[in-house]
Amino acid sequence: MTPNVAAAKAALSHLELDDNPVSIRAKSRDFFWYSPVLKPRMDHLLGDFVVAPRNEAEVIEVLKVCYAHDVPVTTRGAGTGNYGQAMPMAGGCILHMKNMAAVKSVFPGRVIVEPGCLLKDVDAACKADSGQELRMFSSTWATATIGGFVAGGSGGVGSCTWGSLRDLGNIIRLRVVTMEEEPRILEFRGEELARVSHAYGTNGIITELEMPLAPAYDWVGLFVAFEDFDAALGYTEDLANQDGILIKIASLYEAPCAHSYFQRVAPYVTEKTHLVGIMVAPQSMDGFETFTARRPAAKVIYQSGANDWARDPGPVFEYGWNHTTLRALKVDPSITYLQVRYGYPTHAEKVRTMREALSPEVLQHLEVIRENGKVMFAGLSLVKFTTEERLDEIVRLHEEAGCMIFNPHRFTLEEGGRQTVDDRQLNFKREADPKGLLNPGKMIAWDDPNWGFERIYSYPGMKAAE
Amino acid sequence: MTPNVAAAKAALSHLELDDNPVSIRAKSRDFFWYSPVLKPRMDHLLGDFVVAPRNEAEVIEVLKVCYAHDVPVTTRGAGTGNYGQAMPMAGGCILHMKNMAAVKSVFPGRVIVEPGCLLKDVDAACKADSGQELRMFSSTWATATIGGFVAGGSGGVGSCTWGSLRDLGNIIRLRVVTMEEEPRILEFRGEELARVSHAYGTNGIITELEMPLAPAYDWVGLFVAFEDFDAALGYTEDLANQDGILIKIASLYEAPCAHSYFQRVAPYVTEKTHLVGIMVAPQSMDGFETFTARRPAAKVIYQSGANDWARDPGPVFEYGWNHTTLRALKVDPSITYLQVRYGYPTHAEKVRTMREALSPEVLQHLEVIRENGKVMFAGLSLVKFTTEERLDEIVRLHEEAGCMIFNPHRFTLEEGGRQTVDDRQLNFKREADPKGLLNPGKMIAWDDPNWGFERIYSYPGMKAAE
Ligand SMILES: Cc1cc2nc3c(=O)[nH]c(=O)nc-3n(C[C@H](O)[C@H](O)[C@H](O)COP(=O)(O)OP(=O)(O)OC[C@H]3O[C@@H](n4cnc5c(N)ncnc54)[C@H](O)[C@@H]3O)c2cc1C
Ligand SMILES: Cc1cc2nc3c(=O)[nH]c(=O)nc-3n(C[C@H](O)[C@H](O)[C@H](O)COP(=O)(O)OP(=O)(O)OC[C@H]3O[C@@H](n4cnc5c(N)ncnc54)[C@H](O)[C@@H]3O)c2cc1C
Repeated sequence: MTPNVAAAKAALSHLELDDNPVSIRAKSRDFFWYSPVLKPRMDHLLGDFVVAPRNEAEVIEVLKVCYAHDVPVTTRGAGTGNYGQAMPMAGGCILHMKNMAAVKSVFPGRVIVEPGCLLKDVDAACKADSGQELRMFSSTWATATIGGFVAGGSGGVGSCTWGSLRDLGNIIRLRVVTMEEEPRILEFRGEELARVSHAYGTNGIITELEMPLAPAYDWVGLFVAFEDFDAALGYTEDLANQDGILIKIASLYEAPCAHSYFQRVAPYVTEKTHLVGIMVAPQSMDGFETFTARRPAAKVIYQSGANDWARDPGPVFEYGWNHTTLRALKVDPSITYLQVRYGYPTHAEKVRTMREALSPEVLQHLEVIRENGKVMFAGLSLVKFTTEERLDEIVRLHEEAGCMIFNPHRFTLEEGGRQTVDDRQLNFKREADPKGLLNPGKMIAWDDPNWGFERIYSYPGMKAAE
Repeated sequence: MTPNVAAAKAALSHLELDDNPVSIRAKSRDFFWYSPVLKPRMDHLLGDFVVAPRNEAEVIEVLKVCYAHDVPVTTRGAGTGNYGQAMPMAGGCILHMKNMAAVKSVFPGRVIVEPGCLLKDVDAACKADSGQELRMFSSTWATATIGGFVAGGSGGVGSCTWGSLRDLGNIIRLRVVTMEEEPRILEFRGEELARVSHAYGTNGIITELEMPLAPAYDWVGLFVAFEDFDAALGYTEDLANQDGILIKIASLYEAPCAHSYFQRVAPYVTEKTHLVGIMVAPQSMDGFETFTARRPAAKVIYQSGANDWARDPGPVFEYGWNHTTLRALKVDPSITYLQVRYGYPTHAEKVRTMREALSPEVLQHLEVIRENGKVMFAGLSLVKFTTEERLDEIVRLHEEAGCMIFNPHRFTLEEGGRQTVDDRQLNFKREADPKGLLNPGKMIAWDDPNWGFERIYSYPGMKAAE
């Protein structure tokens, strides 16, 4: 099966098609370079052309043409993914969703939107319409798309209240186009959502989303400083367990993260400061202040709209989730990270265990999430990278201690997830992408069902470096 | 200290004052008669006159005049309280709040309202203004006042999400008038709220409230039937733990409660049906249906707006909380109830223990509540009343099994609560009601600090039956 790229390009030339090498290079990259493991392996990857459909009919046309000519198709939202999810492993067509960005309608509690809409634009439209916003969003709110969030993300700002994207109710409906001789349009709800959500676009293209909304508030951003890590940990967990205090994010950064990596915060903390970042609904500020006053170890050092800081630090959520890693990387390029699940009820204990074992080589960065109704932690630990072997060992140490790792140094669905095949995704790929052209190389179960996970998957179809 | 009722009446005659014996009788009663223990003890109680201030200045006038003439003042919202909270134990003035019912302003996430406003009118105004409603309300939403709810209630519909009224953040601000020679106006927030919330009006009159709001949705009411109690229990708890599915109430009624006491539901269930009542946000219905389809034991028998029932059962929440008792009482006057706290993480186990020990004399009626971030149960068990001795024994059996009882057969704050003195309330009463004229007989700590709780408190100042 040799792709006939030239034929596909010719057949699609009436669409918004771009084959300028500079554009191709730009649109063939995501944030894979966060990982020192993925960087050398993926840096050379390039698609052959970029096409930006204006509507679903054009998406269908692209898929049909590429199917006919055996050309791989890798979908691109904004390319802010971290695991090379949007990297065109085998070249081919980059399907750029930027022109499908309409907010179609807003209702009480839900929005219908096209996939290329930026998260911040979804929120702006919902707020203007009826004081609503997305329940949860990636910390790349300002730059990422809603389609990319659902196809590639997991949760984020808001997950302390609403859980993760995969939880029932956090996606209502997805409209999906298949890559067959005659592409089909399917509408998924309920159990069917798991086929394509967080599937990296390997088995269908999302052309419309229906997402639940929460009320939009003028969230108050706060930084709370602690001298003692355990006090900070207890504070963060207890706050998140206050049923009457509505928060949008609660993050904990082990010292000296704030001092070393948060430039605008640094003047107000020391190397010993463990920092907690929070966003509180305005109507909950009294409750928040009462709660905080009961804990003398907690010092509120920053409150948005009520502070005398020389330079505003910007939105508090842009310190959390993977923005923490971004800020650390900018200061110290040798930093990378891991994604850890500290499950209830042993979450706090496990955090302490890992910190004792690995700090400061691994610094704790925790995000409060809810899972099955319980407050617990997602760790996006900052790791001082030395070698791949040591990184693997750190992964192993976590797993031995009972902490689940979602390895961000792997580009496949399975290795970045629970290392098991998701049959719903695989079976749907069989139906919807019979030639295996959608984002090739990202689903091991499709390529090599017997892969053993002992070492990083090496996709045989990967475009070689020139 | 002999009250000079005549002098007080004369001094207040320019206000809306009512001393018609029929009105006095009507306004001297609440739902104390739910309790076969309180009924004979309180049935005869009568105030001397009813006054309905039109604004805060008139409240102050009433309190000042009654202070001068040593006349007790018992505040009345709508008189739907269950423990004789609003019964004028020592006669005197009944301060009826019905004329202070304005919704003053609505903001994103909060409302400022006068105490005499009905819960349903608060919601109507907030919904009309900006699609908002109270986070939680008593199931007497249609008849009770917001002031009575905060002064006498604990939580209710919405507590499965937001916890209880006493939790930080669920009341923002209370404006309170004291009963002194010169009444003072105080504004309470934060820690100070605990002085007067759930204090039965024993230490100040609430003249304005600021309450947090949640979005108003067209909640879908559902009844789900089970053959097996444990399946129903597990379903209810698991549903409430679904972070992405927004619910407003989840109640479980042990068989044959639905068949025997819920007239309009009875044709659709059997004597063996354990029933679960739920309200789900419309945008969460897909998630709810997916969740329910995973549990074959669950049969959805009713959905509001989508059913062929001959007679509409009305709002699902009017089957929950203390409406369950009301419905049972109407069919079988020998039924009464108990309030139980089944605390996390042994809540389900304790429910099973009590059911095994006491069903069908005590039927389980459970309401999902959140406490400290965890889903657990409030029990409003239906009790087949025989004697006071047996009722006390049932209380004891619960306590021995580690289930906390809030005894609804007691009229004092302490006996209906944790049997301990609330120093914040007592200390504030010393300041705010030096003559002890506000709702006398309801705070044991004020009357008799050495009371031992072995038997029901008998208030020496109680007006004798004629
Ligand atoms: C600083 C930083 C912070 C981050 N914080 C978070 C966070 O808080 N939470 C989180 O979950 N992630 C986070 N991420 C990862 C990523 O930014 C988010 O998942 C983001 O929402 C991806 O959106 P995107 O538009 O950039 O998607 P892309 O990176 O363009 O795509 C992501 C994946 O989805 C596929 N895809 C895109 N659109 C479609 C479509 N319409 N149909 C089918 N497949 C499609 C792509 O092929 C790719 O596999 C972060 C990344 C960075 C760099
Ligand atoms: C069928 C039924 C169901 C119920 N369900 C619930 C439930 O779900 N949750 C719940 O918490 N309760 C419940 N209750 C109890 C009661 O209805 C509620 O607490 C209700 O909110 C009380 O409001 P009210 O206006 O009737 O207050 P009232 O009964 O008039 O007063 C209650 C107490 O507050 C005092 N008070 C009233 N207004 C003021 C004021 N402005 N300042 C100071 N003190 C004041 C009174 O003196 C009295 O002590 C239920 C009762 C019944 C009969």
